[in-house]
Amino acid sequence: MQIVIVLFDRFTALDAVGPYEMLSHIPGAETVFAAEHTGPVRNDSGSLALVADRTLDEVPRPDIVVVPGGPGQTAQMENETLLGWLRAADAASTWTTSVCTGSLLLAAAGLLRGRRATSHWLALDGLTEYGAEPTGERVVTDGKFITAAGVSSGIDMGLTLVGRVAGDRHAQAVQLGAEYDPQPPYDAGSPQKAPADLVAELRGRSRFILR
Amino acid sequence: MQIVIVLFDRFTALDAVGPYEMLSHIPGAETVFAAEHTGPVRNDSGSLALVADRTLDEVPRPDIVVVPGGPGQTAQMENETLLGWLRAADAASTWTTSVCTGSLLLAAAGLLRGRRATSHWLALDGLTEYGAEPTGERVVTDGKFITAAGVSSGIDMGLTLVGRVAGDRHAQAVQLGAEYDPQPPYDAGSPQKAPADLVAELRGRSRFILR
Repeated sequence: MQIVIVLFDRFTALDAVGPYEMLSHIPGAETVFAAEHTGPVRNDSGSLALVADRTLDEVPRPDIVVVPGGPGQTAQMENETLLGWLRAADAASTWTTSVCTGSLLLAAAGLLRGRRATSHWLALDGLTEYGAEPTGERVVTDGKFITAAGVSSGIDMGLTLVGRVAGDRHAQAVQLGAEYDPQPPYDAGSPQKAPADLVAELRGRSRFILR
Repeated sequence: MQIVIVLFDRFTALDAVGPYEMLSHIPGAETVFAAEHTGPVRNDSGSLALVADRTLDEVPRPDIVVVPGGPGQTAQMENETLLGWLRAADAASTWTTSVCTGSLLLAAAGLLRGRRATSHWLALDGLTEYGAEPTGERVVTDGKFITAAGVSSGIDMGLTLVGRVAGDRHAQAVQLGAEYDPQPPYDAGSPQKAPADLVAELRGRSRFILR
């Protein structure tokens, strides 16, 4: 089973590494970071580079596709090399997944038309422009598509998918191995839970541009 | 403010990227991934490389030190280049932190003697050999030392430290930006919560060797 995690300039690192740390423990999985070109790919802040070991051309038929998001997603929305790869990969994949604004790339590729899907809470509205039906859930499964909300939600998405592919017991073993027993010191992780003025402030200075 | 995240061969990626994704949002922070040598550093499974942009020698006085863990930690326990750097960096740091078995490296450097600390649940006992007092808490603060439990706990540690450095409101903004409202699909993230036979199984096949 091949899992391909797509990288592009100015992606958000945890979007990719969160699900990676879960999915890479699927028995027999070959996990590959891939981008248009091999070599280091810088994240949103520029202070971290992950290495793309393969080009997208070299991994045309993954079993599982993972598309992270991040501010760099906007520059990819009309990148036909990436969108074309997504369409072709999806035609062969068992599961096509995204984290954060990665769902906008799936949507721009035409893959989420008529599907329930999610994205970063600041980017949810963008899904409707491509015919997807946005929901506020953290992990949304619609057929073979699993989309996750913002950044950290990719961990929950990854663990959900491990359960679907390798069974509940194996997923629990992965959760225990990663000691995923979250205890955030604050309870401000969603626009429903955070102080209203903080939500408004983030909406105001959002780096997420939807087109 | 300079934050240095230490990389070494066969580290666990989420140990490093979890706290990074929180701490890098501290206003004015310069976040640097550093290792003995610059260039790609492969993780525990070998399928992901993060780039070390600086050598440890080039960043001798960070304000915040972050030491991840992973199976590769065992090979570093007598690496005087790394341990010596940790001692010198800690002498100047405001905060010295670890995730997972990274605390065993701090302990081996002699920094946790007489301190309360934590580590991956499979590695907790190893702390006592170095005079630290292990606790089962997820994030342990003792003076300037903050140690976190296994893998995913570095997110909670990072967010805790953002609050200490930049205030509660900023930490809540970081949590909201990362949509850190965890909803694991299982409740097996700690040895207290997971099925007992699964805990026993992981103890049996643990890759964590404490010396």
